[in-house]
Amino acid sequence: MCDYCFESRVDLVENPPIKDFVGDVAEFLNMDDVRFTAGCRHAKWSVMHMACEPGDTVVLDALAHYTSYLAAEANRLKIVEVPHSGYPEFRIDAEDYARKFEEVERATGKPPALALLTHVDYRYGNLNDAEAVGKVCQDYDVPFLLNTAYSSGIMPVDGKKLHADFICGSGHKSWAASGPIGILATTYEWSGKVFERSTVRGNWSGRGFSKKEVAMFGCSPVFGAPIITLMASFPAVVERVKHWDEEVEKARYFVSQLEKIEGFHQMGMKPKQHTLMNFESLALHEVAEKDKRRGYFLYHELKKRKIVGLHPGMSKNFKINTYGLKPDQVKYVAGAFQDIAKSHGISVED
Amino acid sequence: MCDYCFESRVDLVENPPIKDFVGDVAEFLNMDDVRFTAGCRHAKWSVMHMACEPGDTVVLDALAHYTSYLAAEANRLKIVEVPHSGYPEFRIDAEDYARKFEEVERATGKPPALALLTHVDYRYGNLNDAEAVGKVCQDYDVPFLLNTAYSSGIMPVDGKKLHADFICGSGHKSWAASGPIGILATTYEWSGKVFERSTVRGNWSGRGFSKKEVAMFGCSPVFGAPIITLMASFPAVVERVKHWDEEVEKARYFVSQLEKIEGFHQMGMKPKQHTLMNFESLALHEVAEKDKRRGYFLYHELKKRKIVGLHPGMSKNFKINTYGLKPDQVKYVAGAFQDIAKSHGISVED
Repeated sequence: MCDYCFESRVDLVENPPIKDFVGDVAEFLNMDDVRFTAGCRHAKWSVMHMACEPGDTVVLDALAHYTSYLAAEANRLKIVEVPHSGYPEFRIDAEDYARKFEEVERATGKPPALALLTHVDYRYGNLNDAEAVGKVCQDYDVPFLLNTAYSSGIMPVDGKKLHADFICGSGHKSWAASGPIGILATTYEWSGKVFERSTVRGNWSGRGFSKKEVAMFGCSPVFGAPIITLMASFPAVVERVKHWDEEVEKARYFVSQLEKIEGFHQMGMKPKQHTLMNFESLALHEVAEKDKRRGYFLYHELKKRKIVGLHPGMSKNFKINTYGLKPDQVKYVAGAFQDIAKSHGISVED
Repeated sequence: MCDYCFESRVDLVENPPIKDFVGDVAEFLNMDDVRFTAGCRHAKWSVMHMACEPGDTVVLDALAHYTSYLAAEANRLKIVEVPHSGYPEFRIDAEDYARKFEEVERATGKPPALALLTHVDYRYGNLNDAEAVGKVCQDYDVPFLLNTAYSSGIMPVDGKKLHADFICGSGHKSWAASGPIGILATTYEWSGKVFERSTVRGNWSGRGFSKKEVAMFGCSPVFGAPIITLMASFPAVVERVKHWDEEVEKARYFVSQLEKIEGFHQMGMKPKQHTLMNFESLALHEVAEKDKRRGYFLYHELKKRKIVGLHPGMSKNFKINTYGLKPDQVKYVAGAFQDIAKSHGISVED
């Protein structure tokens, strides 16, 4: 990867054609410039590092991934949360961003330095209205970072349409890359600031590194498997986002089947607009309480049926994602849940 | 990797046994605690982020890797360089660290917040006297970060013996890992500070992430290929460092053969104590000036002889590393250089 590096940065390497790939990804997200980062968490840290000053305030949704909070913490920023609507929808209202912006301005004398929205939250798989939040940010002139860790790469994301100043994404979560890699996209307006180059000078040697980018640690540590697998998957990613509607259909079918089980309720907004979902399953929890495997019983019952991936130890509620399953497989998994329920005396509607 | 994560951090995962591996690597470096980072550059940034405050001064050798400078820049630290002795040795003198510490103290009223030494520099492959620098740091009570990107993993490194407070290393450079991954080792005394846990709280939700570590972005983005390949290589790494003397012998032999070529001089300290070396090759440069391939002629001549890896375009001086070559291969490569020289009218001693 680095053998033919003549421009001092991995994003500028022409053989393999990473430089072209940077442009392709920018176009795919309808943004102007892109870098690959050591995970989506690094992308968020980078934006907050370059676009904010210590002591500034960042406004974020209360279902943001922990790495959004940590990125702010590492940059010594204050956090103000936009509340969600609580059980059972956990909805984020775009208008609450406006309210929080005004509160921050009243309290600190200036608008927040950044607003962050989690496009699809990690817990309930709610698809938040990024365009509406983007519009509010535009109206209040607050830079807008959209975290697409669970959206870009599997569903269409159009940065300009969503009024995003920054988009971060996760290569190993939704772009079919192996090895941790993040994506950071921005606009022409922000590119120079976020990808600001090094100005440090050796006081004795005079050494300088004027092509290196500060927030990327000079040259982003993504060379090798992370970026190569991201590139290798990209054509498939571009193709698959066109079929997002079919994925959502399968998810809705799955919900309809699981909600036939007594005490099973899909959490979050309805109908599903994303394939990541969360079920409350109190009836299962009651079974688990009497089973010597406790919360692991669901994990083991599924494993017996060759279904793996559910977080072990969960029974009161659980997360599941139907993305990429064939219709038959979705049916099989839903049937397995019904079967487990029935065999433990939980009733299932016909 | 993350399926059986119950403790919220990749370094605590027990299946696969990453938690044990953390302990193994700490023992191997004779340090007390270890984390894996998004590259050695991230490890340096982490130390400077947690052990220093913005505005503090870090003292580093003038042949430090650019990522050492950038780590300081991203943390808004001042840089003071320890000069090297210049052409042809480029030697770093441990006593110059003491001088710089005193200069910093006179100028700022306090000692530097950190000293960094590049154990083996990237350019000449000089093995610096880490123990002597460590002793100076101890005497002046300045925390000591040793960058072992070109040493740990191929040669023995004993952190306690070298008086290191922090050791950073590079998995893909010297630990036979694929994919970018760094190593950060520290002492009991510093562990709590450098691996400080998150204290951020959601102002509305009350959410907290008290197991997550701030400088690791919560949980270090190394899951997957980076850490698995680092683990897979580790037994071989432990074994190979025992044979470092043989590697140094081969390097010295190689130098002796290349210095038979007119105008070839090994740069840096002599005799070689490391396998990374740099040759001045003015005679080749004169040939290149007349060759239509210019500086690329050496690259192509070597490639014809099935020797690859030399940075294309170099002829005035070049870097080469004999590490891991069998004696026959070292001989073959040295012979190839002599052959190229002869065939271009450069004289070679018998």
